[in-house]
Amino acid sequence: MVSEGTRVFPARRLEAFATSALVALGLPERDAAVCAGRMIEADLRGVDTHGIFRLPHYSQRIRVNGVNLRSKVRTVRENAVTALVDGDNAMGHVVMTYATTLAIRKAAESGLAWVGTFNGNHAGAGAVYSTMPLAHDMVGMYMTVANANHMAPWGGVELILGTNPISFAIPAGEEPPVVLDIATTVTSYGKVKLAAQKGESIPVGWMINRRGQPLTDPKRSSEGFLLPIGGYKGYGVNVVIGMLAGVLNGAAFGRNVVDFNKDLASPNNSGHMILAMRVDNFQAVEVFKQEMDRVIRELRESRRMEGVDRIWLPGEMEHYRVRERLEKGIPLAPAVVEELKKLAGSLNLSDRLE
Amino acid sequence: MVSEGTRVFPARRLEAFATSALVALGLPERDAAVCAGRMIEADLRGVDTHGIFRLPHYSQRIRVNGVNLRSKVRTVRENAVTALVDGDNAMGHVVMTYATTLAIRKAAESGLAWVGTFNGNHAGAGAVYSTMPLAHDMVGMYMTVANANHMAPWGGVELILGTNPISFAIPAGEEPPVVLDIATTVTSYGKVKLAAQKGESIPVGWMINRRGQPLTDPKRSSEGFLLPIGGYKGYGVNVVIGMLAGVLNGAAFGRNVVDFNKDLASPNNSGHMILAMRVDNFQAVEVFKQEMDRVIRELRESRRMEGVDRIWLPGEMEHYRVRERLEKGIPLAPAVVEELKKLAGSLNLSDRLE
Repeated sequence: MVSEGTRVFPARRLEAFATSALVALGLPERDAAVCAGRMIEADLRGVDTHGIFRLPHYSQRIRVNGVNLRSKVRTVRENAVTALVDGDNAMGHVVMTYATTLAIRKAAESGLAWVGTFNGNHAGAGAVYSTMPLAHDMVGMYMTVANANHMAPWGGVELILGTNPISFAIPAGEEPPVVLDIATTVTSYGKVKLAAQKGESIPVGWMINRRGQPLTDPKRSSEGFLLPIGGYKGYGVNVVIGMLAGVLNGAAFGRNVVDFNKDLASPNNSGHMILAMRVDNFQAVEVFKQEMDRVIRELRESRRMEGVDRIWLPGEMEHYRVRERLEKGIPLAPAVVEELKKLAGSLNLSDRLE
Repeated sequence: MVSEGTRVFPARRLEAFATSALVALGLPERDAAVCAGRMIEADLRGVDTHGIFRLPHYSQRIRVNGVNLRSKVRTVRENAVTALVDGDNAMGHVVMTYATTLAIRKAAESGLAWVGTFNGNHAGAGAVYSTMPLAHDMVGMYMTVANANHMAPWGGVELILGTNPISFAIPAGEEPPVVLDIATTVTSYGKVKLAAQKGESIPVGWMINRRGQPLTDPKRSSEGFLLPIGGYKGYGVNVVIGMLAGVLNGAAFGRNVVDFNKDLASPNNSGHMILAMRVDNFQAVEVFKQEMDRVIRELRESRRMEGVDRIWLPGEMEHYRVRERLEKGIPLAPAVVEELKKLAGSLNLSDRLE
């Protein structure tokens, strides 16, 4: 579904573009490549709100020294199966790539690992990290505290909670892995921003205003807040994520979350957690994968409601989108292309996305 | 809120009653005490659908040899931080008490542990297990595959998914710990059953029929299915829980889940997982607890929507309910008391709850 004016770029070109932009902004080549890679992975998965769409915003933060370009991400506390990582205010993608790599290494040795981070930043799409353990026949679990508060506690009106997302990844055999990546709000603020950018309205049920009435104009999003999934249940999950990814790591949660849209310069102290676990703790890898394939097919092939073409497993659509976009390219909305062109111009990049 | 005809019993009396009943049914004294203890903990927390309310049903299963009374729960696979436990078709409370104790012991030594179980049974309320690590200054996480399928895949109509609950527990200092315990459906099937028992209708949004229309008569619950929280998001979480607590452990998930209401005799092969992690992997315990208290108070004391008396943290209501019920007793609905009396009569117990 490509709307008018949408342009399609090969993934490699966008990745090279993002890398060049970040290098021009002052990031070391290696960090720039990591960030660009993680962003384009999000775009390939179809998580358009968490990929290169964010580059202009990241650039703004970098330009006002909101991010540490010469960071030294390091482990400040660890044992065989856990680690606390100080992100040194690096780009979140750099911090989380370090943390996830560490979790995978520890889990490879010990079977299981939980790594938490503080002093981080927005790291893009959660599934980009939760899926890293898959190649090692491991389960991944990721949680983070969002970088702006767009939700109130259940019964409250103060914006002191974020969309706090959670992501799980579970390996399968011939079938695509099961990958869930959700905000614990009915929608993400990124989707609200995208709707505003596209000039579209948002559905009833996404947001309410401070008097509890539906809010459907995304341009007025500052007058209300996002709703949690399942009412008090989603509020509960949201708070738990905030505590496990934030408080436990000494990272921001609640009022001390910096709104990274309004305040470009203050360090975010963004917190994340990643868990990796070898499936062969419990079963031979091949047996587990066969069993995963069996239950995946059982769900997909079960009887559908009238009018439904297909039952999807979590992450399955994204799996096929990666294939499609690797082949056909990544579509970008005109407004996004415009922003990127401006950025390219201001940085004097050789590729201006013309 | 005590409705007419409700009777109130001291927790100790109900625990002794449940123990006697289970012993009379043939359970070893120690196992009976474990089960009764776990059931009454659920009642104390106010999870009325997962406490002694279930005893008559458990008894039915025991009477037709649906549960192994002479079980030998054992660890069949383990390393320092993970274990796979064969529940030997024991009462679920016995299996999960074993598994959680093991997870805590491993986490005490190594910092973190994940224990999975198969060949188990319904174990009552998830929070009863997720909260066990709290006393050891650990975080707890629990997931299980429900013992009956009351939900369809997103877009489907076949009942091949359960309410698959998840529970988290996080220690605090002076404040009550944060404890979340939720079905990933909008409500639990236990609440539907309780409404049916009470002769009440259920709200729109809890269930739909196979044509997608609201179902509000709980006595007709077999004509429809429960809805997941947050639509496709809750469906995704539900499936992930089923895979991590079921498939990974070689336990039932999907079509091979035995409906423990309709089929009393077949082994359930119920799967559960419990994770325990020391908070001092990340911070000094006292520092963490102070910080938890701070954010808990920040949430509770934030500005409320008009007409809201108080903002509650997850598990806070249950915390105060435990205190209240320990002091004033556990209220039981007339229909529940009637069932328990019948059970007591059939087992010739000395306490007939008269």
